Amino acid sequence: MRDVAIVGVGMSKFGEEWNRGFREIVIDAGKKALNDAKIKGEEIDGMFVGTMAAGSLIGQEHVGALIADFMGLTPIASTRVEAACASGGVAFRQGYMAIASGLHDCVVVGGAEKMTDVSTASVSDALGGAGDQEWELFMGATFPALYAFMAKRHMHEYGTTEEQMASVAVKNHYNAARNPCAQYQNEITIETVMKSKVVASPLKVFDCSPITDGAAAVVLMPLEKAKKYTEKPIKIIASAQASDVIALHSRRSLTELAATKIAAKKAFAQAKLTPKDIDVCEVHDCFTIAEIMAIEDLGFFKKGEGGKASAEGKTRLDGEIPINTSGGLKGCGHPVGATGIKQIVEIAWQLRGEANQRQVKDARIGMTHNVGGSGATCAIHILEKGF
Amino acid sequence: MRDVAIVGVGMSKFGEEWNRGFREIVIDAGKKALNDAKIKGEEIDGMFVGTMAAGSLIGQEHVGALIADFMGLTPIASTRVEAACASGGVAFRQGYMAIASGLHDCVVVGGAEKMTDVSTASVSDALGGAGDQEWELFMGATFPALYAFMAKRHMHEYGTTEEQMASVAVKNHYNAARNPCAQYQNEITIETVMKSKVVASPLKVFDCSPITDGAAAVVLMPLEKAKKYTEKPIKIIASAQASDVIALHSRRSLTELAATKIAAKKAFAQAKLTPKDIDVCEVHDCFTIAEIMAIEDLGFFKKGEGGKASAEGKTRLDGEIPINTSGGLKGCGHPVGATGIKQIVEIAWQLRGEANQRQVKDARIGMTHNVGGSGATCAIHILEKGF
Repeated sequence: MRDVAIVGVGMSKFGEEWNRGFREIVIDAGKKALNDAKIKGEEIDGMFVGTMAAGSLIGQEHVGALIADFMGLTPIASTRVEAACASGGVAFRQGYMAIASGLHDCVVVGGAEKMTDVSTASVSDALGGAGDQEWELFMGATFPALYAFMAKRHMHEYGTTEEQMASVAVKNHYNAARNPCAQYQNEITIETVMKSKVVASPLKVFDCSPITDGAAAVVLMPLEKAKKYTEKPIKIIASAQASDVIALHSRRSLTELAATKIAAKKAFAQAKLTPKDIDVCEVHDCFTIAEIMAIEDLGFFKKGEGGKASAEGKTRLDGEIPINTSGGLKGCGHPVGATGIKQIVEIAWQLRGEANQRQVKDARIGMTHNVGGSGATCAIHILEKGF
Repeated sequence: MRDVAIVGVGMSKFGEEWNRGFREIVIDAGKKALNDAKIKGEEIDGMFVGTMAAGSLIGQEHVGALIADFMGLTPIASTRVEAACASGGVAFRQGYMAIASGLHDCVVVGGAEKMTDVSTASVSDALGGAGDQEWELFMGATFPALYAFMAKRHMHEYGTTEEQMASVAVKNHYNAARNPCAQYQNEITIETVMKSKVVASPLKVFDCSPITDGAAAVVLMPLEKAKKYTEKPIKIIASAQASDVIALHSRRSLTELAATKIAAKKAFAQAKLTPKDIDVCEVHDCFTIAEIMAIEDLGFFKKGEGGKASAEGKTRLDGEIPINTSGGLKGCGHPVGATGIKQIVEIAWQLRGEANQRQVKDARIGMTHNVGGSGATCAIHILEKGF
């Protein structure tokens, strides 16, 4: 097993890209990552792409080969990976394995989703395929409904309030306003969230991540090789993935994600670290309650105290543990397959000291937490600078 | 890099399974593979699943987690891989990497597709997503049309005849009639093919692989560990994958698949073998012309001589190089994501001497050739018995 490092990162501007198709946004992100790594296409010998629903959204499967083609990278091995909203994180893990195993020497990992201006009648139906189609979506349980169940139970068990959840959205919009790649560049207030329309009680529009077009990409190499390409290689010191039962009604608890806890335990063991060692973390805030549960499940705060910690500002840029400096899924946008890679891009920027207005001081170790569906897949990575 | 071996294989009966859903056929194949390997679920620490179009066919994405759940295997890392009709072969390669790298010690790789009795209006449209949606499918070029272009050109350049193509279907039905898992159990004649309805000239119904429900699964371990579980471990001596431009109109040639040639070259180099060393081979005969091109591109016959060789019986069970002993996609059926794994299952049975009526005598080294779309992805594996 070889050490693996990130040598280049890039992402498209997230948002409603009505003038650009799937191919254009992917090429945009890919070119930025290759330029950042200062490598040419010929040096790349493998690619992994995380995309959730290109088949149902734009009628296009086989996107691994499609992207290799439009990036001019044929005949490299190019593989699409899908794990719903964790497609990016899981694709990143495949890239990590490909380099660690010695089978590949330079791999690009991309994530992408084109979700606006598409052919599907219902994006909600396409996204519903991330849960249990037969027993949840078919019965009408869309994703806001599933997370509303979790929010209600969290409120019941721990006294979490709607205002506490709102504080997550406020913080993430604050960070997004400092991220030129983010979908939303505007700050909001608790009142903005509280007065927004109810989607699935207690979740309101501003508790929900948006529909987004976007792509992100990274270049991976063996660490020793990476040092020749960059003065700031970012080492991957942990890569972990876990699964859970897919339907919410089969879970033991509605207030935690077992897959997150198991993947986190594995990741911390691999990196020989504890939550206290993490300087900055991107978590999967598809809904505000999801961020609250994540910062508890990852061990940054005790179970039940995530809402209070958020409201007290402990997860802000200058807080105990800055969470979602990119703006998270809520503020930066959530092009499903791209999200897991965007998290990696943001942490790389933070560890390289290139996050400008949203830079976390002296960030040395960062973490990404990418969830698929309502928690049936979780991919966690820990990154470190300074090799 | 550790040596990797197959310790167990299984597949569902391929066919029109109107009484069984996606989950049932996957569990069927998975249980057979686990029983064949004589292992318990607790011993498995990773899973890869090849599925092309569950999103558009049955509204279900996130099938990696779904299958881990319904197989009772949570919280293992379970990852769906998609590369159109090469989804199975590419998933197998991920499983191989997972074991070779040392990251996993016992991995199940499955492939599955539920294609009949589904919710999609048009299975042809869903399958068309394997090509270039914007420039082929949208313009009306379904897959039979794309392969008809190749057939016409092959006939023009090399004098290949419709009767020669028909001989591929006749041979594959003959083999399928000896495979209890095959969709079609009936032998056919050249006349059957020639008199069947034209789909896209010169391809007739019996030149085309069918729509099929089916699943297949294999269990992988490090070779040293595998020897403790089975007296007949099958070693993976080569794993190669290549890509090509996705649209047919961008190719330099219509009579060969560049991805096949490149992946084959890599695979033979890794195994230190030549085509003459292969005792039995499963190739991707989505259409009869595809088998003819494959046996040429893989190096079994010179370019342009595949049709003649097929008509002369050189690819029959008792021929120079037995091709598609399972019945191939034409006779055994083509549940898209399952096909690449079914090929592995068939070769494992052949090398273990368990192929009964269709057994190739003294088969020691076997090969699988799995193509995505009209050739934009190719995955090739070489397997050997006797360790």
